[in-house]
Amino acid sequence: MHILITGAAGMIGRKLTARLVDAGALNGRPIETLSLIDVSAPQKPERFKGSVVTSAADIADPAAARAAVASRPDVIFHLAAVVSGEAELDFEKGMHVNLDGSRALIEAVRAIGDGYRPRFVFTSSIAVFGAPFPEAIADDFHLTPLTSYGTQKAIVELLLANYTRRGFLDGIGIRLPTINVRPGRPNKAASGFFSSIIREPLAGEEAVLPVEDSVLHWHASPRAAVGFLIHATAVDRGQLGPRVNLTMPGVCCSVAEQIAALRRIAGDTVAARIRRAPDPLVARIVAGWPRRFDPRRALTLGFRGEASFDEIIRVHIEDELAGKFAA
Amino acid sequence: MHILITGAAGMIGRKLTARLVDAGALNGRPIETLSLIDVSAPQKPERFKGSVVTSAADIADPAAARAAVASRPDVIFHLAAVVSGEAELDFEKGMHVNLDGSRALIEAVRAIGDGYRPRFVFTSSIAVFGAPFPEAIADDFHLTPLTSYGTQKAIVELLLANYTRRGFLDGIGIRLPTINVRPGRPNKAASGFFSSIIREPLAGEEAVLPVEDSVLHWHASPRAAVGFLIHATAVDRGQLGPRVNLTMPGVCCSVAEQIAALRRIAGDTVAARIRRAPDPLVARIVAGWPRRFDPRRALTLGFRGEASFDEIIRVHIEDELAGKFAA
Repeated sequence: MHILITGAAGMIGRKLTARLVDAGALNGRPIETLSLIDVSAPQKPERFKGSVVTSAADIADPAAARAAVASRPDVIFHLAAVVSGEAELDFEKGMHVNLDGSRALIEAVRAIGDGYRPRFVFTSSIAVFGAPFPEAIADDFHLTPLTSYGTQKAIVELLLANYTRRGFLDGIGIRLPTINVRPGRPNKAASGFFSSIIREPLAGEEAVLPVEDSVLHWHASPRAAVGFLIHATAVDRGQLGPRVNLTMPGVCCSVAEQIAALRRIAGDTVAARIRRAPDPLVARIVAGWPRRFDPRRALTLGFRGEASFDEIIRVHIEDELAGKFAA
Repeated sequence: MHILITGAAGMIGRKLTARLVDAGALNGRPIETLSLIDVSAPQKPERFKGSVVTSAADIADPAAARAAVASRPDVIFHLAAVVSGEAELDFEKGMHVNLDGSRALIEAVRAIGDGYRPRFVFTSSIAVFGAPFPEAIADDFHLTPLTSYGTQKAIVELLLANYTRRGFLDGIGIRLPTINVRPGRPNKAASGFFSSIIREPLAGEEAVLPVEDSVLHWHASPRAAVGFLIHATAVDRGQLGPRVNLTMPGVCCSVAEQIAALRRIAGDTVAARIRRAPDPLVARIVAGWPRRFDPRRALTLGFRGEASFDEIIRVHIEDELAGKFAA
């Protein structure tokens, strides 16, 4: 089996690569080839027995997109994207990467034709939804994104469904919850603080909380996100039907509940490292974001996230901190 | 006031032009200039006192799109589109005209910048919805088109909302019901029979009905459609909010009810000119289409359609047949 990952140098891309390398197989078929693409060439994974091709490419360039799929990968994980904050600040870049890049890639698949129909896993986002919301967002709630990022993701969802319906590829869109706890340094996503208030205190550093404690949000760990993407390759096409874009399960909790979980797991000293510094811009952006879902279709199709925010913190401590934190 | 109409040579485009010419003004402001664009140059309207510019252009060509808006029309009616049947048969043409053409036009508006922010009325369609449906489709039901045409319309809706939110233009998307009775000859739309079974019998000709009498659908007259587009220019931006795409009111009725209305208005002889000839392909396409809506937002914002299918037939007899039909 040949697997292509775009955005392979990103946080989820690296974790997905590592998980695939560890498993050595996907859905019972050995992985012979990994193609890893990003704007800068991704690192070659260690310990992988098969062949690895890494490349630096802008897939919004049609020639690069064609080259990416020319060797007909069986499964394509399309993760490459500009994050929400950047897509809002740089409209043209967001359109270029998130919309034109995705379209160039699926067009390149279509152009091969000839019965080639890979499973195409697209990482969408809960940013496709925009306020006002019902108490819990059902699978048939409309997409009214309030960011350019969410708009671009929603458009690619529509393209993916249509390309799948027409038999150009075998698509599935995975609307990721906000990923928490993101490892590493903050990125430009406006949602960054949801992770910072857990990650920095556990590392002995101060974190800034720009919103009210009452803010609710929808979370999943990086480990769960990778699990969603891998499970997406196993979902039966007939069971999925024409509505190929799915909201993933997550943990709904308030910032106060996040902090309470941190306190339970790591103690008062750690939780005290969160400093309140209200930021009206961030608060306004976050107010337009979804908070709670009723993701029945994903659950029926076997997708599983965490059961509590405590579990999300424990996953972070296990996967990123080797079980230790700065108490 | 300067008004631009794309797709001005089409059925709705011509009726919209005629209505604007008759009125001589829009929202109390005299119309000084009409710019009419289509793939073939539209006819100049008679009796118009202002200046008329007609041109043949493919607005998916960025230079043509820029030229179309260079003189900064105050209101843009963007009607140009390839119909559903054609967009399904010719995937690339549908993407080119319906998606790339619309994007080129709104990009051309954005490129002007400099405070230019026209009211941009986009004709969308109930084809943005795809089965399965609830009994009546609410304003917050998701868009899962089952045609390439519907996909293209849904994508432009998303772009329109985002361009509006970012202040690049002042957009409103009007999801037209199926237009009934379409005058003239059948076009390539799979929905053509909904009109044929009224139009042909009233003209003394036989009509073919390819689906079951029980099929429900959502209708509005060409007169109502033009009324929606004109009203769309008057809707208050603040009242509209960020959800700029609206399902229009229509008449929900079955084919049997259409035929009963025809019989009431035109008699048994006319209604007997409908011949049943089931077409499984058409039946399958139509089965994926929406049937009934609960278009509360449009009603709240003052949009009004017909109250019955009888009224729709009477509008046709008045507007197209000068009050007479072949009894």
